Amino acid sequence: MIRPHGADALKPLFVADPEQNRQLLTEAETLPSLLLNSAAAANAVMLAAGYFTPLEGFMNIADAMSVASGMRTTSGLFWPVPILNLTHDIGSIEGAGRIALRDPNTDGNPVLAVMNVASIEEFSPDQIATIIKQVYGTSDVAHPGVAVFRTLGKYCIAGDIEVLNFSYFRDEFSDTFRTAMEIREEIHSRGWSKVVAFQTRNPMHLAHEELCRMAQERIGADGIVIHMLLGKLKEGDIPAAVRNDCIRKMVEVYFPENTVMVNGYGFDMLFAGPREAVLHAVFRQNMGATHLIVGRDHAGVGDYYGAFDAQEIFERLPDDALKIEIFGADHTAWSRKLNRVVMMREVEDHTPDDYVFLSGTRLREMLSQGIAPPPEFSRPEVARILMEHYQFEETNRAANG
Amino acid sequence: MIRPHGADALKPLFVADPEQNRQLLTEAETLPSLLLNSAAAANAVMLAAGYFTPLEGFMNIADAMSVASGMRTTSGLFWPVPILNLTHDIGSIEGAGRIALRDPNTDGNPVLAVMNVASIEEFSPDQIATIIKQVYGTSDVAHPGVAVFRTLGKYCIAGDIEVLNFSYFRDEFSDTFRTAMEIREEIHSRGWSKVVAFQTRNPMHLAHEELCRMAQERIGADGIVIHMLLGKLKEGDIPAAVRNDCIRKMVEVYFPENTVMVNGYGFDMLFAGPREAVLHAVFRQNMGATHLIVGRDHAGVGDYYGAFDAQEIFERLPDDALKIEIFGADHTAWSRKLNRVVMMREVEDHTPDDYVFLSGTRLREMLSQGIAPPPEFSRPEVARILMEHYQFEETNRAANG
Repeated sequence: MIRPHGADALKPLFVADPEQNRQLLTEAETLPSLLLNSAAAANAVMLAAGYFTPLEGFMNIADAMSVASGMRTTSGLFWPVPILNLTHDIGSIEGAGRIALRDPNTDGNPVLAVMNVASIEEFSPDQIATIIKQVYGTSDVAHPGVAVFRTLGKYCIAGDIEVLNFSYFRDEFSDTFRTAMEIREEIHSRGWSKVVAFQTRNPMHLAHEELCRMAQERIGADGIVIHMLLGKLKEGDIPAAVRNDCIRKMVEVYFPENTVMVNGYGFDMLFAGPREAVLHAVFRQNMGATHLIVGRDHAGVGDYYGAFDAQEIFERLPDDALKIEIFGADHTAWSRKLNRVVMMREVEDHTPDDYVFLSGTRLREMLSQGIAPPPEFSRPEVARILMEHYQFEETNRAANG
Repeated sequence: MIRPHGADALKPLFVADPEQNRQLLTEAETLPSLLLNSAAAANAVMLAAGYFTPLEGFMNIADAMSVASGMRTTSGLFWPVPILNLTHDIGSIEGAGRIALRDPNTDGNPVLAVMNVASIEEFSPDQIATIIKQVYGTSDVAHPGVAVFRTLGKYCIAGDIEVLNFSYFRDEFSDTFRTAMEIREEIHSRGWSKVVAFQTRNPMHLAHEELCRMAQERIGADGIVIHMLLGKLKEGDIPAAVRNDCIRKMVEVYFPENTVMVNGYGFDMLFAGPREAVLHAVFRQNMGATHLIVGRDHAGVGDYYGAFDAQEIFERLPDDALKIEIFGADHTAWSRKLNRVVMMREVEDHTPDDYVFLSGTRLREMLSQGIAPPPEFSRPEVARILMEHYQFEETNRAANG
């Protein structure tokens, strides 16, 4: 199998031994504690699940600046995005060598991890500005990743961590949340050698299904891992269970047995475009994928990045940076001319009218009125699950006035 | 003069009496304390400075939901955006009747305000989703305002506050930061009756200057208040002192005496488009302006709002909502055809080539190479100040390698 990033084996920071976990928790209750921000909590869960191998905790300022400017830690490890624990207030932990990190996203703010504090440093405004510019490619406060990063605070708490749980992900998404270890094991036990990963946070329509199939065929992959980004729901999002049902039904009906795995990971979108695409590749390598599908404007937002910037960044990486390769894709859609799903950049003579498109708004309208989208857009089995969901929602809304 | 919003007189929550301020600070050091997030700290400064008259502190859930859905508090006050103090962790203040609110944006997190806690409540995920949808008009996490709001926490700490200082604004922007009381007084002492406010966070070029002049002439205003949004610098921003010099030089050379005031306020952009435009109007009424210039996509971002949504919302407000009126504007630029600055929607036969435009990137390039932009774009006096700034920056960059 493909090697984990920068290590011979995964280094999950989750404390799996129940006794040791209990002891740490008992100790943690006596330690000075820090309430994490959501970004740091998401990092801790990724570290726990082995996705961020070989990191052993949060970076200090020297590593963060080195990663921001040159995508290497001070010790030379290739890494695309600083992994930071930032805060506005160090009053509760000053002078402490060992602290409890508390979870902002779970009721009662339970302990998420225990940290050996290696350093508490203060970022200068210039350093913060440099990190933002280099990671996000812009310093515009209207960029959602920049907007959030600027709220996190200037104190940088660095050090190794041991993680006690997977925040709300294991409970809330028990059908889909999987660690890098679990996915790697499953790939191994399925006997797959070449494996292509696809990231989504939505139910998959025909165009997405075909994109996965195209990637698999062209790469000659044994299997596909549909790897869902899990996270707190926003209004209008399809609930995780419904999305999961849709994707599993599609896999069951339309893919050969033992060619697709469906699971997910817990993290927040950074909208950092090219840099985030590289991070996506790092943790897909860690879970055992040999290829990652990187689409148009992958992890981008607005007009901050060029359509293929997130693919081109991989061409400029040093040879030894990553073992995983990318499958660079364009949008896919049904072509009325060719009567099949095509990748848009591969059909030069098409105009927009030659494709079957549905806006998100129009699609939701149809589904909630019980009208199935055309089969060139959605598989009927997937449409049925979505129609049930939307009609149930409509009924509920009507009932609640 | 125009009346403050919902009150006969401004209600600044800043404790101006030095003795009382000292006593409160002494008391605050003994109180349980809460570190504010930046959004709540910004609200506290606006409350302190009288801009948010007649509010006396932070809203509870009932008021927040009522404002989100119908732009009225439960007691019927017109208000466009919930003013909230949200947190992830109430451990340090549970059961407390009086607490100290600490400033996340000033070294050492000094006390910013003292609060009488009226209630500590917990927002449900549905309530958070409803507020986001109604205030921002979208629940897309790629919207920077939504992205930040979602990080703030679910506990709602409501109650009246007394504010001890103006965070970093008074010190860092001493030339420009002014309270609503100060501006109202100055308008009064200048003897102005009709007053039009213009919001900016950039140096003003000819198009902005002419927009102010157009508004003044058409309204028949006695004066203009150029009211700068002050805040933490982002990379590439013109430093406040340089921006200030540019604007004051323009006013000195190109406007008649006693027709323009230049000052600023401390707040964060919400990017809430129409709702934020209404908030902008509320606090300009409080500072004594009778009109506010509302441009194209005012307070908007990306494609979330229609170009004139932020003007149209004012047409739908109840008659008694606000006393201030808006001056709805479009972009302005120099017309090569007409040899003057025009408002774009007022010249139907123009194509893009008929205007003198400069992209921000091109403008910075020219200025840093010591090339003055064309006089149809920038006043030479303003260009000179900006060239000095950029050339100084270039020299510095070269010197630092």
